[in-house]
Amino acid sequence: MVRAVILGAGYVASHLAAGLAKIKKGEVEPYGVPLARYDLPIKIEDIEILAAYEVDNAKVGKTLYDVAVEVFKDTGHTIPEDLKKIPIRRGMHLGSAKVLPVEARGLEDEVGIKEAIERLVREWCELKPDVFVNIITTEEARKVESREEFIEKALKGELSATQTYAYAVAEYVKRCGKAAFVNAIPTPVANSPGIVEYFKEVGAVLFGDDGATGATPLTADLLEHMAERNRKVLFIVQFNIGGNTDFLALTDPKRNAMKETTKSSMVEDILGYDAPHFIKPTGYLEPLGDKKYVAMHLEYISFGGFKDSIYINARINDSPALAGMLTDLIRLGKIAIDRGAAGTVYEVNAFFMKKPGPEGSRNIARSHAYLKLLEWLGLSRY
Amino acid sequence: MVRAVILGAGYVASHLAAGLAKIKKGEVEPYGVPLARYDLPIKIEDIEILAAYEVDNAKVGKTLYDVAVEVFKDTGHTIPEDLKKIPIRRGMHLGSAKVLPVEARGLEDEVGIKEAIERLVREWCELKPDVFVNIITTEEARKVESREEFIEKALKGELSATQTYAYAVAEYVKRCGKAAFVNAIPTPVANSPGIVEYFKEVGAVLFGDDGATGATPLTADLLEHMAERNRKVLFIVQFNIGGNTDFLALTDPKRNAMKETTKSSMVEDILGYDAPHFIKPTGYLEPLGDKKYVAMHLEYISFGGFKDSIYINARINDSPALAGMLTDLIRLGKIAIDRGAAGTVYEVNAFFMKKPGPEGSRNIARSHAYLKLLEWLGLSRY
Amino acid sequence: MVRAVILGAGYVASHLAAGLAKIKKGEVEPYGVPLARYDLPIKIEDIEILAAYEVDNAKVGKTLYDVAVEVFKDTGHTIPEDLKKIPIRRGMHLGSAKVLPVEARGLEDEVGIKEAIERLVREWCELKPDVFVNIITTEEARKVESREEFIEKALKGELSATQTYAYAVAEYVKRCGKAAFVNAIPTPVANSPGIVEYFKEVGAVLFGDDGATGATPLTADLLEHMAERNRKVLFIVQFNIGGNTDFLALTDPKRNAMKETTKSSMVEDILGYDAPHFIKPTGYLEPLGDKKYVAMHLEYISFGGFKDSIYINARINDSPALAGMLTDLIRLGKIAIDRGAAGTVYEVNAFFMKKPGPEGSRNIARSHAYLKLLEWLGLSRY
Amino acid sequence: MVRAVILGAGYVASHLAAGLAKIKKGEVEPYGVPLARYDLPIKIEDIEILAAYEVDNAKVGKTLYDVAVEVFKDTGHTIPEDLKKIPIRRGMHLGSAKVLPVEARGLEDEVGIKEAIERLVREWCELKPDVFVNIITTEEARKVESREEFIEKALKGELSATQTYAYAVAEYVKRCGKAAFVNAIPTPVANSPGIVEYFKEVGAVLFGDDGATGATPLTADLLEHMAERNRKVLFIVQFNIGGNTDFLALTDPKRNAMKETTKSSMVEDILGYDAPHFIKPTGYLEPLGDKKYVAMHLEYISFGGFKDSIYINARINDSPALAGMLTDLIRLGKIAIDRGAAGTVYEVNAFFMKKPGPEGSRNIARSHAYLKLLEWLGLSRY
Repeated sequence: MVRAVILGAGYVASHLAAGLAKIKKGEVEPYGVPLARYDLPIKIEDIEILAAYEVDNAKVGKTLYDVAVEVFKDTGHTIPEDLKKIPIRRGMHLGSAKVLPVEARGLEDEVGIKEAIERLVREWCELKPDVFVNIITTEEARKVESREEFIEKALKGELSATQTYAYAVAEYVKRCGKAAFVNAIPTPVANSPGIVEYFKEVGAVLFGDDGATGATPLTADLLEHMAERNRKVLFIVQFNIGGNTDFLALTDPKRNAMKETTKSSMVEDILGYDAPHFIKPTGYLEPLGDKKYVAMHLEYISFGGFKDSIYINARINDSPALAGMLTDLIRLGKIAIDRGAAGTVYEVNAFFMKKPGPEGSRNIARSHAYLKLLEWLGLSRY
Repeated sequence: MVRAVILGAGYVASHLAAGLAKIKKGEVEPYGVPLARYDLPIKIEDIEILAAYEVDNAKVGKTLYDVAVEVFKDTGHTIPEDLKKIPIRRGMHLGSAKVLPVEARGLEDEVGIKEAIERLVREWCELKPDVFVNIITTEEARKVESREEFIEKALKGELSATQTYAYAVAEYVKRCGKAAFVNAIPTPVANSPGIVEYFKEVGAVLFGDDGATGATPLTADLLEHMAERNRKVLFIVQFNIGGNTDFLALTDPKRNAMKETTKSSMVEDILGYDAPHFIKPTGYLEPLGDKKYVAMHLEYISFGGFKDSIYINARINDSPALAGMLTDLIRLGKIAIDRGAAGTVYEVNAFFMKKPGPEGSRNIARSHAYLKLLEWLGLSRY
Repeated sequence: MVRAVILGAGYVASHLAAGLAKIKKGEVEPYGVPLARYDLPIKIEDIEILAAYEVDNAKVGKTLYDVAVEVFKDTGHTIPEDLKKIPIRRGMHLGSAKVLPVEARGLEDEVGIKEAIERLVREWCELKPDVFVNIITTEEARKVESREEFIEKALKGELSATQTYAYAVAEYVKRCGKAAFVNAIPTPVANSPGIVEYFKEVGAVLFGDDGATGATPLTADLLEHMAERNRKVLFIVQFNIGGNTDFLALTDPKRNAMKETTKSSMVEDILGYDAPHFIKPTGYLEPLGDKKYVAMHLEYISFGGFKDSIYINARINDSPALAGMLTDLIRLGKIAIDRGAAGTVYEVNAFFMKKPGPEGSRNIARSHAYLKLLEWLGLSRY
Repeated sequence: MVRAVILGAGYVASHLAAGLAKIKKGEVEPYGVPLARYDLPIKIEDIEILAAYEVDNAKVGKTLYDVAVEVFKDTGHTIPEDLKKIPIRRGMHLGSAKVLPVEARGLEDEVGIKEAIERLVREWCELKPDVFVNIITTEEARKVESREEFIEKALKGELSATQTYAYAVAEYVKRCGKAAFVNAIPTPVANSPGIVEYFKEVGAVLFGDDGATGATPLTADLLEHMAERNRKVLFIVQFNIGGNTDFLALTDPKRNAMKETTKSSMVEDILGYDAPHFIKPTGYLEPLGDKKYVAMHLEYISFGGFKDSIYINARINDSPALAGMLTDLIRLGKIAIDRGAAGTVYEVNAFFMKKPGPEGSRNIARSHAYLKLLEWLGLSRY
């Protein structure tokens, strides 16, 4: 059994909760869950979602079912009634939703930052979650260098919402038990030395940063394909456009820059040289909804100086892809806790994250990271 | 130093010889040679091409330079004078060129099959090649089940040209020294138990079958990308069309079938189920020349039952891609000999071949095969 | 009001009948019906489908609803009850379904060719259809050169099913009233001088051949785009693969050749020179169903000798596209009759057909044919 | 004979001059020149380029050959010596190059705006050009509403460089003879009522605005293809990225907005409704050079409510495409003058321009505009 709390009640939360409910009932196969075909100590059926936290006034006080109604409209997919059992509570804001066209208020706006953290910790001490999944909208944020900076800024309300949630989770672990924090957005958490250090200190687990879905892992594997043949990549261009809240948030240049950093760090890591690249979230077009369009173009030099070209276009349901990954990350969070891990786990991050922590870690091909992950789990691909 | 003989004086032979000469002179970087960035005991500069064998009357008696003139026209690339030192001698035909619009005669047509084999062996005992690279046009051929069948049919002229060459190489090894045979076309050689057995017996090395260039290795890595995320592949379609001799030969349904078999064996091997697929050489259009066009489309089910689509289009210089692989295979052939290997080497085949021998071997993702190859070489990716 | 009979009760018939019923009820907009936004004398709502004719024993005696159940499964679209009112009667076979995996019997197999034709004519004299829509599976067929050949061979059972249907329609017109025959498959009907002549003689209208849906009209407009900029097309490659009955039938080389002819005639017609091209139905893959995948690649020379490339990939619902066209062709058939037309009408064929009759007609850009069509109708684009 | 002056000595100027020289010598065919296959009163060979005007200090005082050396490097194409005869003189700046990494100074910076205009007019009265081609880098600019505003602002230095050049041309025409001004960039000139009025008044010809090359005309024809089949376009996305100066200038948001306006005006004009669209210059990546990458995706509803998708990717040499168009525009400028035209000519603009003037003109499919253009010329497509 693994008890999970979701931070951010939007597209991904809806898909995660709906997909899990359907898998449990046998209505759909666990496709998109990377480790579904292996026998892990924690089963997909063991996952229970306790609550979701949000700052959008229109959502707080309702259930995840109400959010899913909007998310699933026009998809032709049904919403399980089970989502009515997942309440949406008020969480931390700290400016994280300010570019979105929503009325948002954080717990800290109501009771001040210290009391807000205190209330969350108390709530969690009652709920007893094992894993926290952070999937709030992409926000602007900076690395936290030391444990002192982490504590000090958290209590002054000077960190991003994600980092403040991470701080509250650490306090919860200190006070009431073990837990793992999964950061699936670009905010540097597993890449913040100060946060990793504090998590180690309190005995909490941290996975991050930025869930590796969409075109990024495919690009990583494609770059490795080039590297393994010693092809010289002349340039790589990657566009992507979508119509969900995350793409809307990325029209804010500062948030776009957050995403770009996590995405393009892999080019040099994998190729061994910084091939010219243009890899960024490119646009927002509402009617695309959650199904994004990705276009990629790559040119390289082959043997004898000849030039080859590859063009990739894709249409990908953005949120389900991440929800499938989170299904495993929740299970791995519990497994890591049970193993007594503390701090962050590169073997997990390297496969699941766009910018795998800890800071300074290498971004490697996903196909290689997958083998490392299996090894960490005591499993084998062949 | 490694001394090589090329069987089949066409596009690939021209690109291999020209590329090697340019790398030696420092005119081009060794791009497209997978292991170029590792320090192998045999250097690229150590490769020497002694001769090429052909059955096209228009080529026999000339030099590889004369063939390259045709191959390189309209490419904007120069041809090194060094190719004038590579003579084209008459080789085995056995029907291998019969669908091509060329006048072809084999050594066996002139002196009978036994004497033809004998002459080749004698020539080679003088030339002292270490590695034989088979790149004749795709031919129709069947598996050879036992060493007895191999010997008997070879001497009756009942094997394909490739298999007969393999037999002659085995005889050369028996009589005059060590050697490796690299089969870069679909003819089952490393997948013929009878041939592998005989090579082991005589102490010869065999790599094969069908050099993994073009869309096939990319497809393999893409399928692994799906498998590692437990995505359900609904179907995969892959078209490819080119204008070189090999595509022309593939307009012959029997040869096309040879290619199809080596290409589609990987779907089930990698995914674990036989996803519906259409993967075959699709057409011939002369003006495309050696630069083929590949179109691929794949649909899969993601988390929660949502459907995603990927489209890949590529323009690839066919022969240089294989020539780059052969550069390493020649070096690996010599390395295997020096290590005292005999029979075939799966660790080499798994990365470099579309249908890796020995018979029954699994077709795995190239990115994983690459790690195995490095391990076999005592090297490491990270 | 226009009364229509459908020849061939498969995918297209199902989509045509279902779409019409939904448009009539206001459930869907008339998208995909080219002239829907103009005020034609015959409205979409005026179309009534009387019956469908088939040779598949599993369908004859049922209603179009029963066929649609299979066609619409997995599409997420509903089937209107109205289809239960469209009976499927036994039609002409003449070998047209012989490569399909169905048990087929024609009326001629039951009562002989002459009596079969006679029975159809009598049935129609009762039903009083205005327009016949031929959408049987692609069959092998030859041009009919003279009216004498037409009559003689029709009565001997030596014509294809389509041509025999055309003959029966002509007899119906002679005996019981006006009618139009719309040939939406590659069989030469509007391109058979003998059939056109006979239709003129009896006062019947004929549109054909081969409905211009899918990639062909797009290719035509793309080629015109090149021609209007005087770009030199170096080559054009077009693949397409689907999973419906028509693609299955096209795995028969003779039928494939039928399709290829109608498709590639346009290259020289539009460009003014025969640019190298590979344009053919390429494959069959059942899980693609009615949604085909098209891949296209074109290279051309621009100003100053520079080379540009275009890649097009598409996923197209094959049968709805044709059904939308047929909706207009049925209306145009009645309009032509009402105007007193006889023989074939190039202005209609040029826009709607892949191989517009009469024989020797030029295949022009669809965007130009559209203007001609509007002019014929007394309408204007601007 | 037609005497031309080029405003802006960059990529397009180099390709125009080089291509013309090569066509004159018979070294290349006039591909990419739309009307090359018709017999116009002015031949391509009649074009003479007299001079180019620039503000980049590194270019002024040199010849176009010196610029072409940089433009043609790595293309594999040669530069005709004839370009050494085309001097680069100092032109108007007015902030047009301020975002580019060049040291720029305008004539007006040296002698004041009035004297700068006066000097240009005097120079031209000696040179006697018939046609002025404006191809300076995309600049920020506003519409000029009245002839009074035009005159007043021009003399105060308050107009953009392009508009000031247009004013100088009008003065030249008043004083020394007939001329045409071809505006191939987004600055509103043919779309400025004040400028068109003044040109009419003085008897000068004006074509504009923004040469229709690249993906825009293809998109226009594709949208028409949808409109003619009454397909409901759900959305259209179009990305493009390049590495030439123009893409660099477009990284400036204000200039990007200029381009976007001219590009997306066509969606509603052609479809009849404003389908959701994202059509903008998307990025700059230096190694792409002048060869841009375009990715397009379009989804639409077909008959019966079924959804289809089209994906287009292209690699296009940006400047040669425009240079080919300019070759005709120069000829058409002279033809219009000889016919006694004044003001702007919609029939020319509709085919050649992204935002055809005069203000309020409809953006129509290029294939239809082509027919109008031929009609204006007394020619016919068929």
